[in-house]
Amino acid sequence: MRIEQLSSSISIKRDIDQGTEEQRKVVTSIISDVKTRGDQALLDYTQKFDGVTLSNLFVTKEEIEEAYKLVDDEMISIIKEATDNIREYHELQRRESWMMERSDGTRLGQKITSLDAVGLYVPGGTAAYPSSVLMNVIPAQVAGVERIVLVSPPQRETGMLPPAVLVAADMAGVTEMVKVGGAQAIAALAYGTESIPPVDKITGPGNIYVALAKREVFGMVDIDMIAGPSEIVVLADETASAAEVAADLLSQAEHDALSSAVLVTTSKRLAENVAEEVEAQLSTLPREEIARESIEQNGVIYLASSMQEAVQAVNSLAPEHLEIMTDDAESIAEGIRHAGAIFIGRYSSEPVGDYFVGTNHVLPTNGTARFSSPLSVDDFIKKSSIIIYSKEAMEQNAAKIASFAREEKLEAHARAVEIRLKGE
Amino acid sequence: MRIEQLSSSISIKRDIDQGTEEQRKVVTSIISDVKTRGDQALLDYTQKFDGVTLSNLFVTKEEIEEAYKLVDDEMISIIKEATDNIREYHELQRRESWMMERSDGTRLGQKITSLDAVGLYVPGGTAAYPSSVLMNVIPAQVAGVERIVLVSPPQRETGMLPPAVLVAADMAGVTEMVKVGGAQAIAALAYGTESIPPVDKITGPGNIYVALAKREVFGMVDIDMIAGPSEIVVLADETASAAEVAADLLSQAEHDALSSAVLVTTSKRLAENVAEEVEAQLSTLPREEIARESIEQNGVIYLASSMQEAVQAVNSLAPEHLEIMTDDAESIAEGIRHAGAIFIGRYSSEPVGDYFVGTNHVLPTNGTARFSSPLSVDDFIKKSSIIIYSKEAMEQNAAKIASFAREEKLEAHARAVEIRLKGE
Repeated sequence: MRIEQLSSSISIKRDIDQGTEEQRKVVTSIISDVKTRGDQALLDYTQKFDGVTLSNLFVTKEEIEEAYKLVDDEMISIIKEATDNIREYHELQRRESWMMERSDGTRLGQKITSLDAVGLYVPGGTAAYPSSVLMNVIPAQVAGVERIVLVSPPQRETGMLPPAVLVAADMAGVTEMVKVGGAQAIAALAYGTESIPPVDKITGPGNIYVALAKREVFGMVDIDMIAGPSEIVVLADETASAAEVAADLLSQAEHDALSSAVLVTTSKRLAENVAEEVEAQLSTLPREEIARESIEQNGVIYLASSMQEAVQAVNSLAPEHLEIMTDDAESIAEGIRHAGAIFIGRYSSEPVGDYFVGTNHVLPTNGTARFSSPLSVDDFIKKSSIIIYSKEAMEQNAAKIASFAREEKLEAHARAVEIRLKGE
Repeated sequence: MRIEQLSSSISIKRDIDQGTEEQRKVVTSIISDVKTRGDQALLDYTQKFDGVTLSNLFVTKEEIEEAYKLVDDEMISIIKEATDNIREYHELQRRESWMMERSDGTRLGQKITSLDAVGLYVPGGTAAYPSSVLMNVIPAQVAGVERIVLVSPPQRETGMLPPAVLVAADMAGVTEMVKVGGAQAIAALAYGTESIPPVDKITGPGNIYVALAKREVFGMVDIDMIAGPSEIVVLADETASAAEVAADLLSQAEHDALSSAVLVTTSKRLAENVAEEVEAQLSTLPREEIARESIEQNGVIYLASSMQEAVQAVNSLAPEHLEIMTDDAESIAEGIRHAGAIFIGRYSSEPVGDYFVGTNHVLPTNGTARFSSPLSVDDFIKKSSIIIYSKEAMEQNAAKIASFAREEKLEAHARAVEIRLKGE
């Protein structure tokens, strides 16, 4: 892993994948086809892209029961414990409606309600992670969403979804599971078909076609942030264990070659030891090839001349995951403004959050921690403003409101308040 | 205004404006040009589209001082009072970071920080509303955003922005004002130029080019919901005043021909009286032509056979603005799940919220109240998860976390937790 002196400011050139013209055309044409032909289009695309001929779009109760038999009991109990932890943390995110009152009798407030229906996209293949199902479904369920629809492409060999995904979905509270993936699944969730009523929001990662389709339907429904490759930044000083830091960097690097693992440290010795440990541990990993490519392409150890400079670099990177393994790590954490999740101290290794502790692992990637947040209960509620204006307030202020409206040349607005003064 | 019996379910066919192929091409080419040529591209497009040759992209301090002289003192004091009211309401939306602790010593939490920089788009022409400036800027300012950049096309005649817009922007706390509009302004905010550092989020309405550009840069920066035409639904019974209901419907209709004004009522007599009043009041409005077209195209009075049926209809419509003028209006409001703002009682006329009372007038349109919310302080903060895992918890759970990771075939994740058990 290469070691670089940290320059006063890290310059990061970010951009987003907008797809090729060809990919964009494919996506708009699939969406318009699903709008027109509904379920039949879903069946046709599933045959074409997934090589599966479905007799039923939906996963049946029997298939879910079968899935429980295919996953071993210890795993089921671990999923259950993780589910409880995730639910506990997310329940603390619940928000209450509120009202305030002014001395003139006017009352204002904010009413919180849950979304009615949401859709979760689960990618096919090896990226169909049961942990991701928990992380997407539980916040919606805690928010009070009544209808939670999972969509995912069926596996070519079995025509089914992976058993562990079905178990996690069932445990977390999914109410419908649909065996459809790709842009066609996104179109079905946004516009509805004969058998799938539309939802209000779509979350979950996917390939470029899924990402483009989400961008396209944004506005008809809400979507979560479009996810990029995963990243970790470890901020460490001489007190950290090189072996542990290296292990954490590699746990990110094994995701895929585009993942990035970065160490920012004030210790030259730690830098050198981590570089060695990464090399040593790499050669024993089953996904060595992927991890090695990620480390070579995107891995870097920045040597900072002070902790202050190091913290500033972390804020510029705005990482998805940040681990702080330093003396007095909690104080250092106070200086962090931009990071999806902040893991503090030696035992707070990233996989603790990926799977088990209860925080959400759906986190802002590609520097979007500058403006977006971990998936949370907030993503599945919405607010309505409440206005109860008093007679006294209207008498006091009607003329001012009317003047403001007339300043904007909106006469009917002015009259709507003035007419209140005329009444009996 | 036509009167219709409410059928058991209102069927609403919604869609979003994705622009024409030509418009989409124009937008992607402008964005890529601004990315390449920066400020010079902004100057060129402003000359081409707005007919103004700028010597300086930024509004100067002198121009702001001049604007204060051009707006009359009474208006300035009304803007000031509105600003105070809006700030008071939005300060109640502030949120605190929190931590929880488990018996094994693990601590989890959520850290709240503001965005660093945001951009506000203000449309040109008659839609350059000072009230909208207040509504977009104040929540950002209350959230703690340090850099608030306003962008708006200069007026052809003066080369300036409207004085009342400059005054509102200055009062609310805008830190930079840029005389550029259109897709080029959105590109500059998202990617930055030599003189305009990029922002983290862009809010504010605009024409189809602005809307498409916002959709295109979403992911580089956050954006607010893409706004459609404004709508009001009034829910009223026989206790409401027909003249007041009509005035409120017309205040929506005067915005533009695409606006929609709907009355849902259980009273046949009110329905008939409102239809008459609308006609009578229409003929006296300066914007009669626009309001008449809106009422004719999109205005409707639904006659419901029960209040329960009426409430259900309102929830299907998920209106931007809802007024409830009925007996015991507060109880009726409890049944409303989907509405941007709920105005309760006779004195809660929509313009009260548009201008003055303190709630935000940037509200979800086109049925998006099903999943989105009034603009608020929440839109200008983000959250980071905090994880402080204890040694005891790691000893207890490392094996389970490792099993979960291996279920997902992520061996390096498993080892990252297991290595913590080996340490000194």
